Amino acid sequence: MAVGLVDFPEMNTISGIKLGTSNAGIQQTERDDLVVVEMAEGATCAGVFTQNAFSAAPVQIAKKHLLQNPRWLLINSGNANAGTGKQGMEDAINTCLSLATVVKGKKQQVLPFSTGVIGELLAVEKISAAIPEAVGTLQENHWNQAAHAIMTTDTFTKGASVVIDLEGHSVTISGISKGAGMIQPNMATMLGFVATDAKISQPLLQQCLADAVEASFNLITVDGDTSTNDACILMASGCSTAAEITRESKNYKIFANAVTDICKRLAELIVRDGEGATKLMRVRVEQAATDTEAVIVGKTIAHSPLVKTAFFASDPNWGRILAAVGRSGIDHMDLDNIEIYLDDVCIVKKGERAPSYTEEKGQQVMNREEIVIRVILGRGSADKEVLTCDFSYDYVRINAEYRT
Amino acid sequence: MAVGLVDFPEMNTISGIKLGTSNAGIQQTERDDLVVVEMAEGATCAGVFTQNAFSAAPVQIAKKHLLQNPRWLLINSGNANAGTGKQGMEDAINTCLSLATVVKGKKQQVLPFSTGVIGELLAVEKISAAIPEAVGTLQENHWNQAAHAIMTTDTFTKGASVVIDLEGHSVTISGISKGAGMIQPNMATMLGFVATDAKISQPLLQQCLADAVEASFNLITVDGDTSTNDACILMASGCSTAAEITRESKNYKIFANAVTDICKRLAELIVRDGEGATKLMRVRVEQAATDTEAVIVGKTIAHSPLVKTAFFASDPNWGRILAAVGRSGIDHMDLDNIEIYLDDVCIVKKGERAPSYTEEKGQQVMNREEIVIRVILGRGSADKEVLTCDFSYDYVRINAEYRT
Repeated sequence: MAVGLVDFPEMNTISGIKLGTSNAGIQQTERDDLVVVEMAEGATCAGVFTQNAFSAAPVQIAKKHLLQNPRWLLINSGNANAGTGKQGMEDAINTCLSLATVVKGKKQQVLPFSTGVIGELLAVEKISAAIPEAVGTLQENHWNQAAHAIMTTDTFTKGASVVIDLEGHSVTISGISKGAGMIQPNMATMLGFVATDAKISQPLLQQCLADAVEASFNLITVDGDTSTNDACILMASGCSTAAEITRESKNYKIFANAVTDICKRLAELIVRDGEGATKLMRVRVEQAATDTEAVIVGKTIAHSPLVKTAFFASDPNWGRILAAVGRSGIDHMDLDNIEIYLDDVCIVKKGERAPSYTEEKGQQVMNREEIVIRVILGRGSADKEVLTCDFSYDYVRINAEYRT
Repeated sequence: MAVGLVDFPEMNTISGIKLGTSNAGIQQTERDDLVVVEMAEGATCAGVFTQNAFSAAPVQIAKKHLLQNPRWLLINSGNANAGTGKQGMEDAINTCLSLATVVKGKKQQVLPFSTGVIGELLAVEKISAAIPEAVGTLQENHWNQAAHAIMTTDTFTKGASVVIDLEGHSVTISGISKGAGMIQPNMATMLGFVATDAKISQPLLQQCLADAVEASFNLITVDGDTSTNDACILMASGCSTAAEITRESKNYKIFANAVTDICKRLAELIVRDGEGATKLMRVRVEQAATDTEAVIVGKTIAHSPLVKTAFFASDPNWGRILAAVGRSGIDHMDLDNIEIYLDDVCIVKKGERAPSYTEEKGQQVMNREEIVIRVILGRGSADKEVLTCDFSYDYVRINAEYRT
């Protein structure tokens, strides 16, 4: 039940980045569940991983291997290889070894990613058996197939792609993601795989990805739960004819903005696929004293089950938004300065119901499928936007019926 | 839909504390919605109030008047007088004045409390008109009537009462509460009113209440939302024959424990009345490094919509509990030390599914109406328990349909 238009876009291929898929039959046999990504020699690769203290085995291995000039990604859906202890670590390493053997590389050059049920051991033999076929299908134009293969509870494939111009040379960025909103640690790990043909050093690529994730995947929430397996990867093949992007070059800003934009689109698609979601809400906190403060207020609103159920009911319940702002823990907040808008309708002014507000105006906005909640704090000049969706009966159904 | 047995208990009267009720017809005319409490001269009174930055008008007035030897409480349900600006402050003061006029006191001796819809102006005239009748019914044995009159979305009245012995003298503590779990800032403010005939100074009484609330009302959660009107009051009439309780006396500990126990019972009743609740969960975090750490981990689990929907579905989904522990933000947590039990069934050992665990054993526990989730961190010796309830379809229905 996606919110809004979510068609898979035309994906630009990335010179030097090939994708292959196959069916390992890990949980089901209907569709492919295994992806291999191959980077051209000399490519650089950056990664950002879950902050959960109990990161899954593949996350721990991928973090290590990231420092050793990786050339391949190995991604499986159906099983997260999380909560599996020492055996899980061995299993993750063994799948890397299987791929390395087929492609004649080293296991340290493979980054493993898993998403699916947790607490069950990985079907290493099934995966190893399916690797040759995935390698055999490696092609630059298999983004769609890969986007399909990494899905778990997702209801649609998620992709974004753009070509930018750097001093007369085109640079391409394409990415796919999966996740139905970080809301099922068992099945809804958030994964993002973004690639570009730009030439850029690993440290600068890492900085670029960290900034992009901070402004995208870290500003979405469905229910505040995060997975043990979340990861986002940015690969740069260096095959473009554009000059190397350096920190001082004016191209860096253009490139970084484009990467952030791709990550934002991939993140937004996850919220649109939020389990049970019927509405997309953009919580814009303006005039905060600091960025951090803006994010805290935005997330407190975006996490509030009361706010989320009110939006599901199309109820312009400004008291719930105001109460969420009030309990966000910001010191010395002055109610008299607070203004709240739903799209262009002012609902709260000086901490009270706005004199111009009528229930009809509020109702009109609430009937929309996408709504901007603007909260103006009057404390400074920092602005941030957090994306979230509503809480519906279906959210409870999907999460209560899972496994039963 | 209350969880477990929640009969209103036999309430011991408190010498020197009288309660009266009447029907002001604020939102409905079916039952009383106004309460006056009168304390004997010389009584002391302590209060703890919401941490929400946007506390409602009555909270702001009550905080001020608390320092001026209050003799009366004036409580209304049906309207929270919140989000009402300057007019709201005037209205709250005017209701205090109305009561003061009838009882021949000063308005500064009245503490006002309001709970109900927010953003609407208080019906000051209706309240003023109903005050004489409430004063006319002042009696020591009107606890049940008062418990009824303060209800909003509550499905049952909440009370607790105990008599303790202090060196051969009996001291009585009785209290009532309301709230369906801090889950509707519009209608479900948490209020607690506790009284005793003990003789105790105001500063010590305040300390006693603050400690009791920390160990009770502050350790329950339905959905993490807090109200702009939350308050808990402890009155001590001094009418008991027991000696004054001083900080150094061994009686203080006995008394403080009894007050904490009453607050715990009143808080637990609120969770049992959590909107849509079908299960009561006691999240016990053991062997934490500090009390704060234990509370953080306990609340992260108790707030998790994923954990709460799993319990609604009677699904022993240990992965969701483990993931919540992992994202609670505690530094240097060692997965290998983590054990998790559901009642007496060990489900996680060394961060993995316990070898002895079977789905049947987990299912057996999950079918119960009250479940202890024990999380053993292996980091120290601090233990804390957080109470919560599950997330059901009815939670969404109640909160989505409210106002519509």
